[in-house]
Amino acid sequence: MNSTILYSALGWLDLFGIAVFAISGALVAARNRQTLVTFGFFALVTGVGGGTVRDLLIGAPVFWVQDARVPILCLGIALLVWLTPVKFWRPAAVDWFDAIGLAAYSVFGAAKAMQLGIDPVPAAIMGIITASVGGVIRDLISGEPSIIIRPELYVTAGALAASVFVLLVQTGVQGFVAALIAFTAGFALRALAIVKGLSLPAYRGAEEKE
Amino acid sequence: MNSTILYSALGWLDLFGIAVFAISGALVAARNRQTLVTFGFFALVTGVGGGTVRDLLIGAPVFWVQDARVPILCLGIALLVWLTPVKFWRPAAVDWFDAIGLAAYSVFGAAKAMQLGIDPVPAAIMGIITASVGGVIRDLISGEPSIIIRPELYVTAGALAASVFVLLVQTGVQGFVAALIAFTAGFALRALAIVKGLSLPAYRGAEEKE
Amino acid sequence: MNSTILYSALGWLDLFGIAVFAISGALVAARNRQTLVTFGFFALVTGVGGGTVRDLLIGAPVFWVQDARVPILCLGIALLVWLTPVKFWRPAAVDWFDAIGLAAYSVFGAAKAMQLGIDPVPAAIMGIITASVGGVIRDLISGEPSIIIRPELYVTAGALAASVFVLLVQTGVQGFVAALIAFTAGFALRALAIVKGLSLPAYRGAEEKE
Repeated sequence: MNSTILYSALGWLDLFGIAVFAISGALVAARNRQTLVTFGFFALVTGVGGGTVRDLLIGAPVFWVQDARVPILCLGIALLVWLTPVKFWRPAAVDWFDAIGLAAYSVFGAAKAMQLGIDPVPAAIMGIITASVGGVIRDLISGEPSIIIRPELYVTAGALAASVFVLLVQTGVQGFVAALIAFTAGFALRALAIVKGLSLPAYRGAEEKE
Repeated sequence: MNSTILYSALGWLDLFGIAVFAISGALVAARNRQTLVTFGFFALVTGVGGGTVRDLLIGAPVFWVQDARVPILCLGIALLVWLTPVKFWRPAAVDWFDAIGLAAYSVFGAAKAMQLGIDPVPAAIMGIITASVGGVIRDLISGEPSIIIRPELYVTAGALAASVFVLLVQTGVQGFVAALIAFTAGFALRALAIVKGLSLPAYRGAEEKE
Repeated sequence: MNSTILYSALGWLDLFGIAVFAISGALVAARNRQTLVTFGFFALVTGVGGGTVRDLLIGAPVFWVQDARVPILCLGIALLVWLTPVKFWRPAAVDWFDAIGLAAYSVFGAAKAMQLGIDPVPAAIMGIITASVGGVIRDLISGEPSIIIRPELYVTAGALAASVFVLLVQTGVQGFVAALIAFTAGFALRALAIVKGLSLPAYRGAEEKE
């Protein structure tokens, strides 16, 4: 796996993921009628939260502390959303951008972990963490039910993208091709969830025997 | 303190603590009728959360990122609980396993911190964090009141185990003996809490002077 | 910037910030009629939480794990608050101490980050994180609405202190002078919020176009 080229190729996915998640964070602040400072806080936490936890776990320097353009991007997005009427950001449009960010971030997180020599299973988990932890923190602090415990098929799509990527790379598929296939699989699953309301079966152990 | 031998001897305590906490996480997902992916998320977060925060704080490589068997164990437990009717997991049985995990993890966390040359007071705190933070995150994300603010005597038992271990090691007691005594003390206190409903006195400063 | 001298000069601000935030944490435990162990937990989390996240993000050894005096200070404060009738701690007095801690910690956090060569924008964010994350965690665990989403002008005052400090240091002002001006600006803004109920305008994008 030519990981340096892959890493560069995935660079734009990273920035795209940050921007999309920052928008979703700022929109939560908008829905709660918050102040500009809170917009910035939510844009930053949601945009970089997942990648921050990933970097801490794999022992890499935290990306946005080392690269000032990332927090500036998040704060710029917060200002942009603040200056814009909320109906400009149609929920449907945001859902679709978020789906792209989810799939992109899952692949990118897993790739970054593999680059540092992390084993396949933890590397796939790093992809899932990169894609979902920002949203978990956003929901926790704003007091909304976490995406983790909502029925909609969300984290599963990230898990699919990260797992497919890791599996393909393990079986010798070239990094960029693996990333493309994995991204497509994760995005397609999330798209089905948005369009068809697809969801995973819930646990029924409690009833089966009663 | 022959810390290498101690560390090996405590190795099984570590795996046991991870498994027990992973079960308690998966059971929260079962109680909330979650999907298999959420089972995995809760098993992992609860199983490794405390040890992860400990490793980040003491500057050690995060254990489960470096050792893929740990996340595989947690995900396997999630699958096992998912496939099992919920009444198989009797609350009483889980409480007792959890009590063993709590005492084991408190001692293990403090021992790992002392091994890295951390001072006694922060080392004891690392033991408490190892034993309790996984449950705190589990409760936060599932929206239940945190074990920290529930009246039951839980964190206190972990604090007793960690403090006794650190004190004994400081006074020259051999590592394995110290671990055994500390584990027994912490487990006994938690057992009293389960059997007799023992709890700490609550703060009364507000009434005393009014 | 003679950062070593600045760092020493700011040392007392650090301890003061820890103590003030530890008091506010213990008082939350008192208000909820918690036990002594929970007092200790809240005093520690609130006192060192912000600085802990800062140190993890900038890759510095976590300060209180390396310096046992800090957790001992927090636990001592928890015991002190536990032994004291709650009305001794007048809310107004606590608000003012907290305002000093907020301004001091914002400047200190930004200064520590700059010392490690972090860029100005992330360094200012580190100041805000140092001053506010302890309170965010305290509120999350105790189930109160986070200071981040309360209307009162709080995080903004920290943001002002951190930004003014970073800007002044960037334009060549001597470190200690910059710290003094920045501290005064942040404290003054928070003081106006306490005395005059000053708050930031909330987002109105939703109504403007409807």
